[in-house]
Formats: sequence, structure tokens, C-alpha cells
Amino acid sequence: MQPFGVDINLQTGEMLEPDRIVVRRASDMQGYYADADALEQLIRRGDPIHYEVFEKPVPETPGNLMYCISKLQPGLIGDEFYMTKGHYHRVRHTAELYLCLRGQGLMLMKTEEGECVAEAMARGRLVYVPPSWAHRSVNTGTEPLVSFCAYPAEAGHNYGDIEEQGFPKRVLRVQGEPQLV
Amino acid sequence: MQPFGVDINLQTGEMLEPDRIVVRRASDMQGYYADADALEQLIRRGDPIHYEVFEKPVPETPGNLMYCISKLQPGLIGDEFYMTKGHYHRVRHTAELYLCLRGQGLMLMKTEEGECVAEAMARGRLVYVPPSWAHRSVNTGTEPLVSFCAYPAEAGHNYGDIEEQGFPKRVLRVQGEPQLV
Repeated sequence: MQPFGVDINLQTGEMLEPDRIVVRRASDMQGYYADADALEQLIRRGDPIHYEVFEKPVPETPGNLMYCISKLQPGLIGDEFYMTKGHYHRVRHTAELYLCLRGQGLMLMKTEEGECVAEAMARGRLVYVPPSWAHRSVNTGTEPLVSFCAYPAEAGHNYGDIEEQGFPKRVLRVQGEPQLV
Repeated sequence: MQPFGVDINLQTGEMLEPDRIVVRRASDMQGYYADADALEQLIRRGDPIHYEVFEKPVPETPGNLMYCISKLQPGLIGDEFYMTKGHYHRVRHTAELYLCLRGQGLMLMKTEEGECVAEAMARGRLVYVPPSWAHRSVNTGTEPLVSFCAYPAEAGHNYGDIEEQGFPKRVLRVQGEPQLV
């Protein structure tokens, strides 16, 4: 394997010339938000992009490192802030680094044992998601929440567990402020 | 293990409140530069800091990710640009990510088979050091070369091979410009 370089705009978080873009629209988020009607209305109003992941993939083999730019739009579904689906890693005992480049939000994390914590995300904040913690970004601001992410390339993703079980807590707007409930 | 956050100034590359700082002075670089006399003069003129690595270490076990800020001062030893010692990983088949936050330079990389390539480093440039490639930063600019780095936590470092064998190429100032020779 040969070395290579990738350009990232550190002001906007834009990755120049990604090889793969994963796009999640409002319609991909059915079942995730408390207010299903509000989500349906958004889907009918044009089904806008919810979040995107920009990648230049490397082989998904041990020793390599996968990296990406995660970009989550701002907004509310009812009183609930926009969020990503969230996932465990398929190889469960693998960590992930999120270096926030833009926006305001929370990294919501949980264990299989039911522990649930949130770390603040803001430009320059590096959040360490330890091995075996499921994680989901939540945008509590007014601009896109953009992070540079890195994780062991063999880690993979397991979305099914979160789809079925969700997280123990949601991030709602209460009296104008984000609150974990 | 519990999640945590770390603050990094994305303009200067400064890590706030590191838990560990590795400091390499000019005197730690004996044997690395072509012009040993020029290095000795620098050591006698106060033995200044050559480069620093700022860390908040995590357990060096598979599944975790080590990360750090690398800060290499600008300058010349004779005609040779300041550089880090360079290393393979002790667990050889492990990659490393360098996201350059400040400065100008080159990432010099080599394999055991004698291949040697350089990738440009500048603010916003992510360099992918593939598994099994030794790597060394070279500062060809006039300000510190600062990068955010990430690698598998079990990778470790092997400096001995580089100390004995060096790299096939050096980065010299030739007619005012950096040149690989």
C-alpha cells in the first residue's frame, strides 16, 4: 500500500475530492425520533439530507485506520435535535476519535450495560469514544456539526442494535436550551 | 473506560492540558544529521527544543487509539531541514494519520525494502502513513510544523532501526528551496 494525502478545509470541515459519500436523508431516520409525525412532515416537505459521511476508504483490515468527515445538519424533529443513527462497532472493542471542526453539539454514548453519557462537541474539541461504547452525534446548534473521525479500519458498524434499542436518553429543546432527558 | 474530551486549538495546534509531553532537544538528535558539527554548535548554543509531542495517553491495548500533537521547530542543521527522529511502529503492520494544522513540510516515509517517498504537509493536509512504513516529519517552513496524529494504541515505537539505518533520502535546502537528495 502506498502513502497518500487528502485535503481537508479546517475552517469548514469540507473534504476535497472524497471517494465515497454516505448520504442519510430524513426518510432514513424513520423510527429514530420520538415525534414520528414531525419526521413524516419533513419527509413530505422534500426529504432533505440529514447527515453525510465523506470518506476516502482504505482496506478494512487490522492495522489500517479508517477516517472520515461527518456532517450533520441542524434542526429539530418536534422538540428533538437532529442526530445521527448511532452505532456500535461490529468489532465491538474498538475506539473512535471525533475531532470537531465546526458547530455545536453533543456526542451521546452508551454501553450495553445501560450507562449513558454525553460529551460536549465544539470546534477544537476531541471526543474519545472508548472501545465498546455506542455513539451518536447530536447537533444542538444552528450550523452543521462537522467532525473529523478516525477508527480502526476493521471496526465496521453495527446499526441494528441502536435501531432496535435506541439510547436511554434523548436530547430535547427545553425552554430554548438542549437538555438530556 | 469512560469517554472524555480534549481541547485542541485548531489555529495554533496547541493541546490544552496535555498529560504527557515528550521533549526532544538538539542533543537528542546526535547521529541523525549529515552535518554533525553544525548540530554540535547548536547544542553548545543552548541545546534548544527540537520537537515536542503532546499526549493524553490511553491504554496501549488493541482497540484503543493513541493520539497526539506533534510540534517540530523550524530551522537548518547545515543545509538540512529540522526533522524528527522517525520511527517504525513496534507492531510493524499499523498505520498512522497525520492531520497537519500549521506550518509547511514533508512527511518522509520508507519501507524495509528501500522504497522512499515524501508527501507534502501543510495546514489541512491529511497524510496517510500505511502499515509498515517508517515515517519522519521534516519542517521546510519558517514556523513550527504542527500535526494532529492518531494510531492504533498498541502500535508502540521502534526508533532503533532508523537510528542505525537512517532514511535513503535527506531534505536539504538547495538554492533556497527544499530538495530531496
